[in-house]
Amino acid sequence: MGFKKRTHNCGELNISAIGKIVTLNGWVSRIRDLGGLYFIDLRDRYGITQLKINPDKKDVYDTSLKLRNECVISATGKVIKRESINRNIPTGEIEIDVDELQILNEADVLPFNVEEDVKASEELRLKYRYLDLRRRAMTKNLLIRNDVYFIVHDYYRRHNFVEVETPILMKSTPEGARDYLVPSRIHHGKFYALPQSPQTYKQILMVAGLDRYVQICKCFRDEDLRADRQPEFTQIDVEMSFVTQEDIFELSEGLFKEIWKKILNVDIKIPFNRFTYDEVINKYGTDKPDLRIKNDLTIKNLTDIFKNSNFNIFKSAIESNGFIAGIKLKTKEYKIEITRKIIDNYTEFVKKSGVGGLVYIKSDETGKLNSPILKYLSEEELKLISDLYEVQNGDVIFIVIGEKNKVLLSLGLLRNKIAEDFNLIDENDYEFVWITDFPLFKFNEEEMKFEGEHHPFTSPKDEHLSLLDSQDRKSLESIRAVCYDLVLNGNEIGSGSMRIYKPEIQRKVFKIIGLSEDEAEKKFGFLTEAFKYGAPPHGGIAFGFDRIIAILCGLKSIKDVIAFPKTVSATSLMDDCPNYVDERQLKELGIKIEKKK
Amino acid sequence: MGFKKRTHNCGELNISAIGKIVTLNGWVSRIRDLGGLYFIDLRDRYGITQLKINPDKKDVYDTSLKLRNECVISATGKVIKRESINRNIPTGEIEIDVDELQILNEADVLPFNVEEDVKASEELRLKYRYLDLRRRAMTKNLLIRNDVYFIVHDYYRRHNFVEVETPILMKSTPEGARDYLVPSRIHHGKFYALPQSPQTYKQILMVAGLDRYVQICKCFRDEDLRADRQPEFTQIDVEMSFVTQEDIFELSEGLFKEIWKKILNVDIKIPFNRFTYDEVINKYGTDKPDLRIKNDLTIKNLTDIFKNSNFNIFKSAIESNGFIAGIKLKTKEYKIEITRKIIDNYTEFVKKSGVGGLVYIKSDETGKLNSPILKYLSEEELKLISDLYEVQNGDVIFIVIGEKNKVLLSLGLLRNKIAEDFNLIDENDYEFVWITDFPLFKFNEEEMKFEGEHHPFTSPKDEHLSLLDSQDRKSLESIRAVCYDLVLNGNEIGSGSMRIYKPEIQRKVFKIIGLSEDEAEKKFGFLTEAFKYGAPPHGGIAFGFDRIIAILCGLKSIKDVIAFPKTVSATSLMDDCPNYVDERQLKELGIKIEKKK
Repeated sequence: MGFKKRTHNCGELNISAIGKIVTLNGWVSRIRDLGGLYFIDLRDRYGITQLKINPDKKDVYDTSLKLRNECVISATGKVIKRESINRNIPTGEIEIDVDELQILNEADVLPFNVEEDVKASEELRLKYRYLDLRRRAMTKNLLIRNDVYFIVHDYYRRHNFVEVETPILMKSTPEGARDYLVPSRIHHGKFYALPQSPQTYKQILMVAGLDRYVQICKCFRDEDLRADRQPEFTQIDVEMSFVTQEDIFELSEGLFKEIWKKILNVDIKIPFNRFTYDEVINKYGTDKPDLRIKNDLTIKNLTDIFKNSNFNIFKSAIESNGFIAGIKLKTKEYKIEITRKIIDNYTEFVKKSGVGGLVYIKSDETGKLNSPILKYLSEEELKLISDLYEVQNGDVIFIVIGEKNKVLLSLGLLRNKIAEDFNLIDENDYEFVWITDFPLFKFNEEEMKFEGEHHPFTSPKDEHLSLLDSQDRKSLESIRAVCYDLVLNGNEIGSGSMRIYKPEIQRKVFKIIGLSEDEAEKKFGFLTEAFKYGAPPHGGIAFGFDRIIAILCGLKSIKDVIAFPKTVSATSLMDDCPNYVDERQLKELGIKIEKKK
Repeated sequence: MGFKKRTHNCGELNISAIGKIVTLNGWVSRIRDLGGLYFIDLRDRYGITQLKINPDKKDVYDTSLKLRNECVISATGKVIKRESINRNIPTGEIEIDVDELQILNEADVLPFNVEEDVKASEELRLKYRYLDLRRRAMTKNLLIRNDVYFIVHDYYRRHNFVEVETPILMKSTPEGARDYLVPSRIHHGKFYALPQSPQTYKQILMVAGLDRYVQICKCFRDEDLRADRQPEFTQIDVEMSFVTQEDIFELSEGLFKEIWKKILNVDIKIPFNRFTYDEVINKYGTDKPDLRIKNDLTIKNLTDIFKNSNFNIFKSAIESNGFIAGIKLKTKEYKIEITRKIIDNYTEFVKKSGVGGLVYIKSDETGKLNSPILKYLSEEELKLISDLYEVQNGDVIFIVIGEKNKVLLSLGLLRNKIAEDFNLIDENDYEFVWITDFPLFKFNEEEMKFEGEHHPFTSPKDEHLSLLDSQDRKSLESIRAVCYDLVLNGNEIGSGSMRIYKPEIQRKVFKIIGLSEDEAEKKFGFLTEAFKYGAPPHGGIAFGFDRIIAILCGLKSIKDVIAFPKTVSATSLMDDCPNYVDERQLKELGIKIEKKK
């Protein structure tokens, strides 16, 4: 199996090497027959170099005739100047006049061609992942990912963070998502769980005095996967002691500034914008607003304006505690035409969020207002609307009526849809925004009980601590947490909070979310126990690594930035997993598969 | 929960800060009452600073009376020169004259004191891991580990390696060790397995053209744990294309040179020593020789010398295909006395390896030989032995007779024992050695079949390829692999090989180890399939990260360099895992616990 080892890779030779005898190893990417003269594009991770096969060199020529795409070869020869220069690649001015050619490994007929404009289905690409990864675009994604690992490690190291590995085999404490379980063989009937996040461990590390912790780590959730979720995903996990939210923001902003500069050579503006949860919900109808959307399109509350409306629909809505709000679209400078059909389409669209329908008020090019409900609106109401929205010729206002949350939701979605329909998003823009002051609790209407909006270790704001003793739903719902998300271009890319570190506050929170003292003890007893022996004030954040890389690569799907992703049904098509195991393995674990009903 | 945030950490203030008003946050490490004047050692990850509490400052004094060890506090005051300087710590020349003192969190009565000379049992230390980790020695281990992560990332990055995360949820292909299994909820009756190593994935990455791969990753083995094994452990995983063993050695040596220099400021000699497997087995009776042992103590084969012995025991041993060998101990320059009792003790010791017993030949201070079997030995035999061992006055030769493997094993163990008994190991010495040319197969006498000595992707040496077609045991046993271990001070810290990349060779190896085509297809079909589409020559290595850190920290147990280790029965005492899970969780997975018999 001996072979002639490369002296250079396929991406580094240029005219300065002319005259040198070199050996390259790589994959046959393309073979061209120019009337007896063969040209081979030889590819490796670093680039492509052209090989020239002269029919006069019999051995070389004979070997070359056996080549197929994706064969692995070793080629030795002199670097010569190329006749037709390829300016698109760094090696485009030279080629190798091959004197020795060795086939290191064959390639069968390929399931699909390794080419940038891949035609294979996603299934085929996943099954033959190694072929797909040979495509330049896919290799590049992994290389960018590699660069970001290093930037992250380096950045946190410079800021005195300690990288600590937390266990993968941990205790099952399902809160929200489902745990992946691992049966214990030694302890019959007991299980480990794979971490949904190292949350409890990183807090314990703060109690241990580690002060600043970071880890790029795998997390696991056994959920019914949505299109772009993975059962195992990677996060940048951070925790700090003796800090406030401000410290975490500043440090995080520095990280993203560095990543964006080093990877994209883009200077992002810091500090990032900030909105409270209440602000973004009221303004954008979502806690993940895409601030790249540059038309107006922010939600404005019209309920007060219409409080004395003569229009029956408005009137009865407000009387039954309803909510009226709208967004304005500027059509003139964006050259948008809003047709009847579009309005019908948007009407159907908002209805899906559970609101009654959509009304519009259009200002035509002369400033004349136009609306099916115009006759029901008073001069005063029209004036107030016009002032509120600073209406100019050509503007359209879309108005929705209904239950407040649904109105906001529907308008938020409509905003995104309009932005997409009319290309209002600048793909080269990066809009980072902090969302702060999330509610601490959310009332689960079905189960008629409170749940944590985030995990149960999230600290309430100091000024809301006294409300933890309230009994009424409204007071509890009004409690805001020192809890924050980082949103980029409409994607949540990070989430964190300051944590509770006083046992008595933790107990109150557990009680409100309906964890009995027993359950709390069983699940999180080790953490509350730890808090008894000197827990520092602490907080942290976790960033979604896969999503960040996808955005850096300009991609929608995180699958393309994960070397071996799983499908939406959590299978790996390449190695066909999960799969059946030997009866012996199950017997050793003392578990049995239940018969399917 | 507001608190006064630190301006400095507890390790950075010195005389240059005198006069400054500072705030420190940290843990109360020690309280001393010097006749009304209180002194507090305040500790954080960075160091210890002394606080001075003056009884004249009533608020501060009153608060200080409530303090206990391990309370978390914030203290503000002026940096002043200390009266009694502590030269052992960087902050030892100053103290803080406290003007404000705030208790951030209380500490209950501690289960054990946080002190360097810890008296608690290992169980207690593991249960309250966060307290144990506050000890300087334990913190230091994690900090060294942190430094090594970075050195590794940085080193491989500089050498063009790509860090790729391979899946944790993979296919079960148990070979050798037991897999940890993860039941699939979506695919009833099927399982994922946690990786014993990312072996197949890293080879696939070579087929994908990634060229140079590295990952610091978790691996899992569900074994009955020996004293110093962990169910999950960390390895530095490396794979390279278009290389030979030499490239892997050179790159690995560079890594260790850099780690040892940066962590210990020790210059290790490269290239490392090398021995073949056959050499070390014959010379040290083990494939993990500790080359720090500086007395002679290497095994010498005496079988030939005694082939015509008149001594019955030797004679009959040789006639029945036995083996005689011995090691020499120099006693004079090492001031060792070998007593009757020691010899009895060593005789019992070697017997445990299944050999008959131990004989010795002692040269006294005048050079006179002394041995219970002296009378059976001819002048010529004694001369040959004396020449072979270059016997000098005071030397002792220990001789063992029996089945060859057992003789070598027993002498190897005896060598280690003698070295330990007489302190022949320099703890500040680091002896790296490559062991090469391992056998490809090992014959399992119980099951009467061949097994891979390493994993089944290990390449035979080129010159032994033809032997793959042999039918006889001896020929197959003589096949050597391009397979290597890195041994440091008697510990295997790395293991790797060049891999098979030709499908036809892989098929032959599978066949010899008794994997039917069906089984091979089921287990590793995706890998052999991948090899059909252009697999480059490749090889790699994996290093045991935990063990390397333990050696760097001068520790015997890897538990002390893992933040949250498990016990020998694979439990975590801190969070009490594994543990029972809800019936609902099992139901969703469609599995049942079998009743215990």
